[in-house]
Amino acid sequence: MARQKITPRAGPPTEGRARAVIEAITPSVDGGRFAVKRVVGDRVEVEADCFADGHDVLACMLRHRRDDDTQWHETAMVALPNDRWRGAFTVSAPGRYYYTVTAWVDGFLSWRHDFARRIDADDLRIAALVGADLIDAAAQRASGADRRQLAKWAAQLRDIDQVSALRALALSDELAAVAKRHPDRSLATTYPVEFPLQVDRVRARYSSWYELFPRSCADSTGAHGTLRDCVARLPYVADMGFNVLYLPPIHPIGRERRKGRNNTLDAGPSDVGSPWAIGAAEGGHKALDSRLGTLDDFRVFLTAARDHGLELALDIAFQCAPDHPYVREHPSWFRKRPDGTVQYAENPPKKYQDIYPFNFESEDWEALWHELASVMTFWIGEGVRIFRVDNPHTKPFAFWEWAIDRIKREHPDVLFLSEAFTRPKVMHRLAKLGFTQSYTYFTWRNTKRELTEYFTELTQGPGRDYFRPNCWPNTPDILPEYLQLGGRPAFMSRLVLAATLSANYGIYGPAYELLEATPREPGAEEYLNSEKYETRLWDLARADSLSSFIARVNAARHDNPALQTDAGLSFVPIDNDELICYAKVDAVSGNAVLIVVNLDPRNAQSGWVTLDLEALGLDAERAFQAHDLLTDARYLWTGARNFVMLDPARVPAHIFLVRRSVRTERDFDYFL
Amino acid sequence: MARQKITPRAGPPTEGRARAVIEAITPSVDGGRFAVKRVVGDRVEVEADCFADGHDVLACMLRHRRDDDTQWHETAMVALPNDRWRGAFTVSAPGRYYYTVTAWVDGFLSWRHDFARRIDADDLRIAALVGADLIDAAAQRASGADRRQLAKWAAQLRDIDQVSALRALALSDELAAVAKRHPDRSLATTYPVEFPLQVDRVRARYSSWYELFPRSCADSTGAHGTLRDCVARLPYVADMGFNVLYLPPIHPIGRERRKGRNNTLDAGPSDVGSPWAIGAAEGGHKALDSRLGTLDDFRVFLTAARDHGLELALDIAFQCAPDHPYVREHPSWFRKRPDGTVQYAENPPKKYQDIYPFNFESEDWEALWHELASVMTFWIGEGVRIFRVDNPHTKPFAFWEWAIDRIKREHPDVLFLSEAFTRPKVMHRLAKLGFTQSYTYFTWRNTKRELTEYFTELTQGPGRDYFRPNCWPNTPDILPEYLQLGGRPAFMSRLVLAATLSANYGIYGPAYELLEATPREPGAEEYLNSEKYETRLWDLARADSLSSFIARVNAARHDNPALQTDAGLSFVPIDNDELICYAKVDAVSGNAVLIVVNLDPRNAQSGWVTLDLEALGLDAERAFQAHDLLTDARYLWTGARNFVMLDPARVPAHIFLVRRSVRTERDFDYFL
Repeated sequence: MARQKITPRAGPPTEGRARAVIEAITPSVDGGRFAVKRVVGDRVEVEADCFADGHDVLACMLRHRRDDDTQWHETAMVALPNDRWRGAFTVSAPGRYYYTVTAWVDGFLSWRHDFARRIDADDLRIAALVGADLIDAAAQRASGADRRQLAKWAAQLRDIDQVSALRALALSDELAAVAKRHPDRSLATTYPVEFPLQVDRVRARYSSWYELFPRSCADSTGAHGTLRDCVARLPYVADMGFNVLYLPPIHPIGRERRKGRNNTLDAGPSDVGSPWAIGAAEGGHKALDSRLGTLDDFRVFLTAARDHGLELALDIAFQCAPDHPYVREHPSWFRKRPDGTVQYAENPPKKYQDIYPFNFESEDWEALWHELASVMTFWIGEGVRIFRVDNPHTKPFAFWEWAIDRIKREHPDVLFLSEAFTRPKVMHRLAKLGFTQSYTYFTWRNTKRELTEYFTELTQGPGRDYFRPNCWPNTPDILPEYLQLGGRPAFMSRLVLAATLSANYGIYGPAYELLEATPREPGAEEYLNSEKYETRLWDLARADSLSSFIARVNAARHDNPALQTDAGLSFVPIDNDELICYAKVDAVSGNAVLIVVNLDPRNAQSGWVTLDLEALGLDAERAFQAHDLLTDARYLWTGARNFVMLDPARVPAHIFLVRRSVRTERDFDYFL
Repeated sequence: MARQKITPRAGPPTEGRARAVIEAITPSVDGGRFAVKRVVGDRVEVEADCFADGHDVLACMLRHRRDDDTQWHETAMVALPNDRWRGAFTVSAPGRYYYTVTAWVDGFLSWRHDFARRIDADDLRIAALVGADLIDAAAQRASGADRRQLAKWAAQLRDIDQVSALRALALSDELAAVAKRHPDRSLATTYPVEFPLQVDRVRARYSSWYELFPRSCADSTGAHGTLRDCVARLPYVADMGFNVLYLPPIHPIGRERRKGRNNTLDAGPSDVGSPWAIGAAEGGHKALDSRLGTLDDFRVFLTAARDHGLELALDIAFQCAPDHPYVREHPSWFRKRPDGTVQYAENPPKKYQDIYPFNFESEDWEALWHELASVMTFWIGEGVRIFRVDNPHTKPFAFWEWAIDRIKREHPDVLFLSEAFTRPKVMHRLAKLGFTQSYTYFTWRNTKRELTEYFTELTQGPGRDYFRPNCWPNTPDILPEYLQLGGRPAFMSRLVLAATLSANYGIYGPAYELLEATPREPGAEEYLNSEKYETRLWDLARADSLSSFIARVNAARHDNPALQTDAGLSFVPIDNDELICYAKVDAVSGNAVLIVVNLDPRNAQSGWVTLDLEALGLDAERAFQAHDLLTDARYLWTGARNFVMLDPARVPAHIFLVRRSVRTERDFDYFL
């Protein structure tokens, strides 16, 4: 932390005549300790309480600059009720910005305000002389035409005797406009904190992730898939409408204490091991598992993915297999046990003997930090711009803050997804310190009440300025009970929820679209025959695959700005607890989408929604069209209360585009 | 502001191994920019979010120190749910304190936590060796008996082979207690802000003010009262149970442009002028109006007041009559008009030609600040410890912050009441920057809804840590319409509301107890024949005087700790909008008071209250006594719902002491 402790004051301040005060600037994350997050193209609205003693008139400016700017850019703030002021600026490039507020008691504006209220003639004449002095001073600060014009007005204010003419000049908009350009800011107050703002590219706000194990992309059973096989898989993923393709670690996998199928301790020679047990004799985090291919293959794959509109996300898992070269080369980065062995990962009584965690309390921590950061810069050098970070909550916060800041200064387009399924404060801290997106508890939020509470907190709580949820209905580690028991309707409804409640979401496939639902054992949340420990051959052409359904959901996301932001979510009352309904409205375009999901995977459910027509931009008197983007059905609705029924045996959800009626010509309505 | 701007980070932090993080410390006013307020004897509870990466166990300490302490005092914080920690300390003397939080990942506690969860014998034996090293290191940090004992335990952990004995020793409370005394804090994190805390004497939290014009204390019509006359008035004020006696300015009153009776512009030679038009040839803010007496008289009066349990509060009004010596001696402290005259106070079109405001934008502002502060230190030198500050919102915030801080460093027992009836943000800023108590909008909050909303905000909003309301049903400037129209019942109910909703309150008398209710003109809020411009002779013995009623209300305040604090206020539902009901409970003593007020000054009103029995410390099954401290009537109530009826023609309010039944012996109940 760079903030200094507050030292007791002794004498008066250096400048005691600065009368404006500034308070309560928003947005702000922990008083400016962490950055507010926005994306390119956003209009950043900033508010502050600004006021002074007495009744004088203030002027307030919002200042902002990019990290590398030496100059502030200023925009005037406008007064709202109750001494609140608002200003805004638009950000057009990714990077780190700062903003703050400056305010001053404006002599000219105060004079003008009072002048308009003066009544008696002597009073007006004396006030005109006071104004002439102020305007002369403004002329001194101006140059060129402004300077000449101001001086002329000042002279006129001294000369004119007729009160009505005096009043007309003193209060003229022309005079005010020019004088305002040259204020006396010598006694301005500037808020002492410069609030950091992290501007990311748009993908930080809107992304659709697909996770797959590249080694399962071979086209025959038992074969080890390669990155070249993955190239062939790209059209399949792209056709579903995803835009991020995320691969688990692609590095050499440890041989020592390698885990067998279903996480057994006795791996046979044909067992492929867990990709998260990183490192073997041939290399570590900067190397490629040779069974997947070469770095050249990686480059080909990356380019091919990009050609399919798919951006690659790599896994960053900072831990080592026992045979990772680091263990030999940097013994000080690992904790030793009293018996001389290296301390493996454990959470007693559980032991993870195939994994050595780094010891961040090592004397050699600084070299460790630099090396780990260099892993990411290595892959950035190979063209990667998104990292999904494994268990960031088991490494020090200070490390991540330093590493992400360091990388984003050089590469402001790099995005980091925090895979921290842990305590809420820890998840939030990781988001605050720099992670672009965060895994969430969505995976375990199933009921209407749970979903409503959680997404209200995410989109309206303080996290809205720094915590971008990325919602996953499954991961290679997590097959939730709801999917195990709910069958195909559960997979459909959970997908719609993830993809419409959150602008960032992802699935682990093909397990998802192929409805993989068998747990390792009853009551367990892990997959049986998990791809973490073996390769799988998936029958992508299966008739029951959800791939085309997923494509429709992703197309709805692609076509509707309301689904590309977490702002503008509001829950809609519906009189059936098995049905959840919510609206998303994009403030800029007015695009409005209404989602209804049947949370009961077994029975048809129906109910009445009560819409907030005004929030949806609808006229209570005119019909509007609810156009279901999943089935292409169109319903003509009027008024706030409308009926819905969803049968899980068919489609358990509606994603309605709300089409407003634009004109009526005899028998035809046109809906936008 | 002493806080520094945040500078962009470059390299890793100096110590990257400090893994604990600290967030969200409460209480906190604007992130530590301003002081939290408490009084002597308070237990200051501090909470923080403290956590680290991974699953290690933290230790957290609350640190506090008085301004003049070089050492921190530390108390251990205890873990609450959700990574929240709480600690507390008690403050025993007025002054400025600071507090902050320090936390670290505790090696010993983490080891102990894991040890308890280990199962297999080899694992336990190796863990014992790890523990032995930790305990040896603790021994190195200890001395004396602790050191010897820790070293002995470390050796035993290395020697013992039997697992059950090992476990017994490792997890023994004795070992934990001693080891915890010598933690390894080398990688501790301390929150970078030291939060200021202003501790005042108890009167800051609980005070009953009586304002009178000393010049009206003479015992014959038209005579100018003196401070000696005021001495004779003291028993009258003390008998009503007040503990602060506040005098409007007692300085020489300007003769130039003196105002006459009822604020007329043409004062005659017998007109006494407004005490707020301060300064004449014979002196200014450090002088005494000779008609009131000498400084010796003042000292006699102050002592006599103290002997009657009355503390004197003086008025600080930083403005000048045109003949104030400052005007001649320090022309640079005043603004000049272009015609060479001094700028009088104005708020166009209103003019206050008898008042010259100070120009705080003067080049000579620093000398002005020092002189004004010296006015207060002059009267402090005369024994005054409470100042009621007139219109502080028309002088710069920075001045007050500096002046109050400067004075309280020397005289931590001095209290400042802010007379700022202005915009909410301005009132709050004055409270934040140091004013001990604040005038409020109570004066204009009449309905049940208004009172409920306003006092909920005051007692539960962020202001609760820095804004101490002081509620006045009238002032020499304000005769509210409710009092003009409501007659005696209105005076009674407004008094009860002020005195029980707020632990600090005051009245302007004898106008109040003598039911003075005639406005200067219909629709005006000012008094006719206001004491601001003339002396009055009051008939204190009038039969309809409220003095004995006021004495009963003040006695209830004196006897009940619940009425001496703003904490513990909760509104109680009552099914009649003309009746307001609220409870005050003192958390320390359990003292509980229930107030019901009839807001309708004309009609009897009745209704059913629904009490929160648990909050009042009552048993739903047992009767309790509602003992009305105004009438001494006692009601036996059972359960949450109870009936009340209040006739404004008799007493429009109940102040019930809630007496709990302590035991039942045959026919008698005893109530505490």
